[in-house]
Amino acid sequence: MNEAASHAENVRDRHHTLRLRRLGIDTHQEPVIYMRSDCHVCRAEGFTAHARVQVMNGGHSIVATLNQIKSDLLKDGEASLSEAGWRLLGAREGDPIAVSHPSPVSSLGRLRAKVYGQRFKDNELAEIVRDVVAGRYTDIELSSFVTACAARGLDKGETVGLTRAMIDAGESLRWDRSPVVDKHSVGGLPGNRTTPIVVAIVAACGLTMPKTSSRAITSPAGTADTMDIPSMRRVVERESGCVVWGGAVRLSPADEVLIRIERALDVDSEGQLVASVISKKVAAGSTHLVLDLPVGPTAKVRSQEAAEVLARSLVGTAAAFGVHARVVVSDGQQPVGRGIGPALEARDILAVLTGRPDAPSDLRTHAVVLAGALLELGGVAAPGSGDAHALSVLSDGSAWNKFQRICEAQGGMRVPPSADHRREIPSSASGRVTAIDNRRIARIAKLSGAPEAKAAGVELHVHVGDHVRAGGPLYSIHAESPGELVYALDYATANQDVIAVGDA
Amino acid sequence: MNEAASHAENVRDRHHTLRLRRLGIDTHQEPVIYMRSDCHVCRAEGFTAHARVQVMNGGHSIVATLNQIKSDLLKDGEASLSEAGWRLLGAREGDPIAVSHPSPVSSLGRLRAKVYGQRFKDNELAEIVRDVVAGRYTDIELSSFVTACAARGLDKGETVGLTRAMIDAGESLRWDRSPVVDKHSVGGLPGNRTTPIVVAIVAACGLTMPKTSSRAITSPAGTADTMDIPSMRRVVERESGCVVWGGAVRLSPADEVLIRIERALDVDSEGQLVASVISKKVAAGSTHLVLDLPVGPTAKVRSQEAAEVLARSLVGTAAAFGVHARVVVSDGQQPVGRGIGPALEARDILAVLTGRPDAPSDLRTHAVVLAGALLELGGVAAPGSGDAHALSVLSDGSAWNKFQRICEAQGGMRVPPSADHRREIPSSASGRVTAIDNRRIARIAKLSGAPEAKAAGVELHVHVGDHVRAGGPLYSIHAESPGELVYALDYATANQDVIAVGDA
Repeated sequence: MNEAASHAENVRDRHHTLRLRRLGIDTHQEPVIYMRSDCHVCRAEGFTAHARVQVMNGGHSIVATLNQIKSDLLKDGEASLSEAGWRLLGAREGDPIAVSHPSPVSSLGRLRAKVYGQRFKDNELAEIVRDVVAGRYTDIELSSFVTACAARGLDKGETVGLTRAMIDAGESLRWDRSPVVDKHSVGGLPGNRTTPIVVAIVAACGLTMPKTSSRAITSPAGTADTMDIPSMRRVVERESGCVVWGGAVRLSPADEVLIRIERALDVDSEGQLVASVISKKVAAGSTHLVLDLPVGPTAKVRSQEAAEVLARSLVGTAAAFGVHARVVVSDGQQPVGRGIGPALEARDILAVLTGRPDAPSDLRTHAVVLAGALLELGGVAAPGSGDAHALSVLSDGSAWNKFQRICEAQGGMRVPPSADHRREIPSSASGRVTAIDNRRIARIAKLSGAPEAKAAGVELHVHVGDHVRAGGPLYSIHAESPGELVYALDYATANQDVIAVGDA
Repeated sequence: MNEAASHAENVRDRHHTLRLRRLGIDTHQEPVIYMRSDCHVCRAEGFTAHARVQVMNGGHSIVATLNQIKSDLLKDGEASLSEAGWRLLGAREGDPIAVSHPSPVSSLGRLRAKVYGQRFKDNELAEIVRDVVAGRYTDIELSSFVTACAARGLDKGETVGLTRAMIDAGESLRWDRSPVVDKHSVGGLPGNRTTPIVVAIVAACGLTMPKTSSRAITSPAGTADTMDIPSMRRVVERESGCVVWGGAVRLSPADEVLIRIERALDVDSEGQLVASVISKKVAAGSTHLVLDLPVGPTAKVRSQEAAEVLARSLVGTAAAFGVHARVVVSDGQQPVGRGIGPALEARDILAVLTGRPDAPSDLRTHAVVLAGALLELGGVAAPGSGDAHALSVLSDGSAWNKFQRICEAQGGMRVPPSADHRREIPSSASGRVTAIDNRRIARIAKLSGAPEAKAAGVELHVHVGDHVRAGGPLYSIHAESPGELVYALDYATANQDVIAVGDA
């Protein structure tokens, strides 16, 4: 050990321990450390507010952002963490922690080179993704990575490299059966919640479909959102299918971090989209994959040509990991089903599964097409006969039977909640519905509180082609709080053309 | 007022007032609001941690990030702000505040379009810059803007548009005299602190040079860092020159925000660099401008060609605002002077101004060349005679005399502080100094605590071409705390080639 390093050890041993006290400050995902501005560590280390600080607690270590306390919230020798910090560090009240300068994050040099136009090499993407998962990137740096990948683009090799890096940075599942099938819908289409129906159909046909998702709402009938891997294995062992949230099994932890930034920016580049989708499917042990690409003027994919480019990249990247993928291009001109929001979507799904005559037929048809493709891909149905096979399993009640058994195995089915605050939005004219804006309808659902507020969202009363009279209902907003209802209504009032009504 | 909006008014009036209590949490520049997670406002509005919240206090309004309190730090009906929040909102303990959802930031759509390759129109840049200055962009969004401008580039029209937007978003100074001269050095060269010398020389020759800078350390001899505009005018009225920090006069408030992000990312695009420099000079009322472009392998500008491209953009953009600019390309292969860090640089500057025989000759020569160019540009010296004129004013003591009078007018001169903790770094070999890495030397100075710690930094004992013996001193690290000395030493030990020594 050289002189400087040994000096560093001494300084740390002698002076840099603080005792943790809980202040109960919730900063969401961001780890923050609170230290008195006049504490000996801040003085000795020259820490100023917003500095990045390495925090060690026994074997655990995180990098946190420093907020300084200029009052008596903390006593001399004390420090605190944000709720995310306690969680990440596995710390308890009274634990002694050591703090120091974090070592520089060398992968940031690779990011800068990309901003200036150089392409990433594989090992560079691996280095970046490891640092991202370890929490060593600030939000500013994460945003720069997401933006640089969107603005400069990722070529085929970079996309495969990013996919591999994201797989390697998380856990992976292996199944002792084959094929293991899965589906993924490329977003942008509100209410497009076919997954539980597809799982029920293909599992009823004996195919294995252990469905995980990064979206928080995949269990529309209210089964447990999260599940550990052994429990998930038991469910799949027994029922061939399951519907759980990927966040709990950490299949692609980098993706969770990047998706938060992509959503905040509403930026979604092709390379990152492909890496996100394929990394999670490979990590989940899928061997066969159907990809749903809705195309429409307000969907994520706007044209047939864009769909073909994206499909090639998805199928090619999947193939690089030995996964057989098939793309189904679908009609993305409007939302699927009637409900947008967890409970409202659950209602649609249950209506389709139980074969109610008023079930949304677009949702049923779309689920049947995707399930049919999986049945063919998985070798259960002959080419060209998948849809008919899927439809019969749905119609004869075996899919509904399978769905109930999966829910039971995952901890029981709950009734979807309903919202206390509702408002119907009427049409200002008579005529035919000519268009529904997916993005703005999704925004209204978000303003109403969905998906955090499970009962909140939008209930569509019309679809494209329907006739309406002036004053007749177009859609209803559901909310769990009056404030959220008001904000959704404000936006709805300012956006009367979200559902366009033309001459009859 | 429509029904939804009037409902919103009612909800706000009845329920959404909280009383402010000071917790004393310093988050640096970021405005944060602290609210109990179980408070009626969070429940009614559906606010979750990390939400963006509009906070109103009388006529003032800011957008802040929500941190939720899950303990008794705050009582029911109370809220708190980060120190930046109190400052921006002009709030006092006990003030009642109203909180609500912020309206969507529409300029973010323009930013997204740029990420995907569209160019900015003028009015779009104006809209973005207004939102940035109003604090409506999160750090994630600011980082995306900086990265998109670097990755996609800004063309000539966009650069002028950004410059105009940055001027319009801040205050502007007008002077009742002409010419008003200024200089700017494009960064990347540690210790290149010629400004006080140049101001002293040209003001001694009767030119007006009201020097403002966004860097915190422009008053090396320890005069007031900040100054309001009336005081600045009084100083310039009396002495023709001044040296103040631009942050206080808000000449380009957007630049302060963007520079923080650019530094965090270590990304600096040509368009933003040009807009940053020219907007501040135009806002400061400059009519004639000398731009110092050091070129070297570890300077910001790496080649003669890059310097020519940047020079064209700087001169062209200045011309769009009626400002005459001249570029001086200088030798950027190593730091200028001996000291890097506020007090160490001040020492060099005072040595040059007082004509001490051991004053660093590179700093003197560089200052004379820049001052000479300004004297010619400002019509005080004939073309070709500027350098000689500047040198004579420096040699005969009139520049030193002028400098003392400016310091006096700005509140008096203080003696630069010196550091308690120092360490000499020896050469491991005998030979000739072949290169000095500007970036890594600057990093050592930063790790030692500079520029926040005024006495901290690096003192060079050699320059390129000097002969050293093994064990002889290359440079010394100065620090105000033992921790900072250790971290700078750690880095110095791992980077023995920061000063390269070759065969003699």
